[in-house]
Amino acid sequence: MNNNTVKLGVIGLGPRAETLLATLRDFSQEECCVTAVCDINPERVNFTCELFRKNNLPIPAVYSKHTELLADKNVDAVLIPTSWNSHLAIAKDAMKAGKYAGIEVGGASSVEELWQLVHNAEEYGGSCMMLENCCYGRNELMVMNLVRKGMFGELVHCSCGYEHDIGAELVGEERCGTERAVHNLKRNCDLYPTHGLGPIAKILNINRGNRFLSICSFASKACGFKQRAKELGAAVTDYAMGDVVSSIIKCANGETIALTHSISLPRPYSRDCRVQGTKGIWLEDAKGIFIEGISETQINIDVAGNPYSSHLWDPVDKFYEEYDHPIWKEFRDNPTGGHGGMDTLALRAFLDAVRNRTVPPIDVYDCAAWMAVTALSEASIAAGSVPVPFPDFTNGKWIYPAGEKISKWDLNS
Amino acid sequence: MNNNTVKLGVIGLGPRAETLLATLRDFSQEECCVTAVCDINPERVNFTCELFRKNNLPIPAVYSKHTELLADKNVDAVLIPTSWNSHLAIAKDAMKAGKYAGIEVGGASSVEELWQLVHNAEEYGGSCMMLENCCYGRNELMVMNLVRKGMFGELVHCSCGYEHDIGAELVGEERCGTERAVHNLKRNCDLYPTHGLGPIAKILNINRGNRFLSICSFASKACGFKQRAKELGAAVTDYAMGDVVSSIIKCANGETIALTHSISLPRPYSRDCRVQGTKGIWLEDAKGIFIEGISETQINIDVAGNPYSSHLWDPVDKFYEEYDHPIWKEFRDNPTGGHGGMDTLALRAFLDAVRNRTVPPIDVYDCAAWMAVTALSEASIAAGSVPVPFPDFTNGKWIYPAGEKISKWDLNS
Repeated sequence: MNNNTVKLGVIGLGPRAETLLATLRDFSQEECCVTAVCDINPERVNFTCELFRKNNLPIPAVYSKHTELLADKNVDAVLIPTSWNSHLAIAKDAMKAGKYAGIEVGGASSVEELWQLVHNAEEYGGSCMMLENCCYGRNELMVMNLVRKGMFGELVHCSCGYEHDIGAELVGEERCGTERAVHNLKRNCDLYPTHGLGPIAKILNINRGNRFLSICSFASKACGFKQRAKELGAAVTDYAMGDVVSSIIKCANGETIALTHSISLPRPYSRDCRVQGTKGIWLEDAKGIFIEGISETQINIDVAGNPYSSHLWDPVDKFYEEYDHPIWKEFRDNPTGGHGGMDTLALRAFLDAVRNRTVPPIDVYDCAAWMAVTALSEASIAAGSVPVPFPDFTNGKWIYPAGEKISKWDLNS
Repeated sequence: MNNNTVKLGVIGLGPRAETLLATLRDFSQEECCVTAVCDINPERVNFTCELFRKNNLPIPAVYSKHTELLADKNVDAVLIPTSWNSHLAIAKDAMKAGKYAGIEVGGASSVEELWQLVHNAEEYGGSCMMLENCCYGRNELMVMNLVRKGMFGELVHCSCGYEHDIGAELVGEERCGTERAVHNLKRNCDLYPTHGLGPIAKILNINRGNRFLSICSFASKACGFKQRAKELGAAVTDYAMGDVVSSIIKCANGETIALTHSISLPRPYSRDCRVQGTKGIWLEDAKGIFIEGISETQINIDVAGNPYSSHLWDPVDKFYEEYDHPIWKEFRDNPTGGHGGMDTLALRAFLDAVRNRTVPPIDVYDCAAWMAVTALSEASIAAGSVPVPFPDFTNGKWIYPAGEKISKWDLNS
């Protein structure tokens, strides 16, 4: 440890904390040191301390109450991989205590808890970053790079989502009482919007010259979880959550974003990314990019003997060598850490902001706008799929574009 | 010609008629014979007659007014590849004259013109089929086959669309006054819904035990056409049509359908097809199918040493040999005609219905429901992207499932 070492507390020691701690093992003890951990469940505290022992790392202070950890002077910042319902309340307390809060991804249950988050950040001068690892995904960052260079032209439409078959995990006996399972049992909305929407929001300059204006959401019938429960011999219950929840967001600058949430049906994983402008498009599911003037257009002849043209996808990886984002150019030869290296990058970005007391690249207004999707999509569906407006959590500050780049981790300039 | 030969009139001799006539050249003169053609433009009539001469086919009778062609006793049925605004009025007149009408694809400008179509079919006993070639696409039919066999489980969500970069064609000097260009200049809606939605409607049993309940539509900003016009040195005008129009349709059985229209931006062609149930999914853009129990699921290990599973796409063509629809099993060794053979199949289906005086596989209620999307999406966008209800053009008959298969061309059983 030295003067630049970030002293980290970790609040919530579930499976997500385990992955984060595994990722942090690749960080030097000069870069950051986990000095305190906290969980209401003593078994998880013991399990976690055992990991430190096994890896010959200094054993952190242990707490069962997050407020006690937050009072520890040997902690500069906290990671909050707790259950979804508690992220925001703990983040508020962290900022009140003058600490930086790194909250894990998730959605809000009310717009009010997001206003509280914003008020606390503004009042106490602490700061809050959502550790949205997908903002540091290789393809997401490369496409941002292409967009900032003007190679996609003017952006007009995007899509994103979270499509991940975890149905069996949530209905199986072991998990059906977990918070995530109960959210899906009781709620009908886009529960988990940020993996897809975070990177898209950055690319569209949301809160920096643009903002989300409204969202309208639609739920399909709900039969995936029930079907899984039957197959697994688990309790067969009606889930409130539609198997596929589709939303459309309108932005102040006229772009539309199509958003999808689906976790109860068998299918390969996708974040459904699409970024489209007047000159180019990236489509994750096609593993392709098309840029006018760069990608190929074929001329064919139809049955009547007349010509017609077909644009062809370029494989995304064709662009890596030249157009990887600077963050990935530096990282690509030796990516380490969870989720293909994205966890490492998100953590490094957070630590950099803590160390320099700067505004993190995903700030409190981003957290509020992105997490609002859950509460607002729930409201839209409850009211019969009508459009509902987004609050302006910046109170007008969004009309100005991002300033100069703060650090190499900055995603806004 | 013999007693079973269908005597066809063709009304409207533009580029689409040219492709249809090229496709019909592979049909024997015993199967069908074009006995009359009609266009208000004598140049197109001459151009078309020249095609007949060049191919040593009997020269048809020529008309400049469709009502005169419809009075010709030497015509059993008509194809109507006219401009969009006139499809429905001519189809009504055809049914009044006791002829079968094969209308080309397109959308309606009002719900009222669709009611008129339905009333004319019911009153005069004629019949109307939309020549939606994509209903006979190989992948669309194979997926229908997989769904009918139960291999996708219970269906919950679909998507479809028409994404085709024809921006340059519509703003170029030669075409900017054409009807399609003016529709895009003046209207903001899903102008061209049926290529994607037709096959999906068949797969979801729309009008046969299911129906479209409501649609809600959203338009992105409009800058693609303008950008193209600038590049081509054409007149730069503001187009009403959003570059990407996204809609969500809710169905009576609880399924949702995401629908996209986009023709002004550079990108590879796609009909955006997705068909998803509790056991399987087809995603056109991924060129993949995943079926639980058939497709592969890998077990991986994460950075913390814990296992997680990944489902993998099977390539669509892996399923052709065994699961091609019977129509394609018969056709696949020697597909002929426009659009990869789909035009041939749609025409054969129409001729079969005319010959046997049976209800065509895409009937007047299908035409009405599918074409209503254009008028209803326009209404939704005009009202601020609120959901608007679909009329029930069947007046309640949709609650019953399809009966026994009428012919091998039947898409409903």
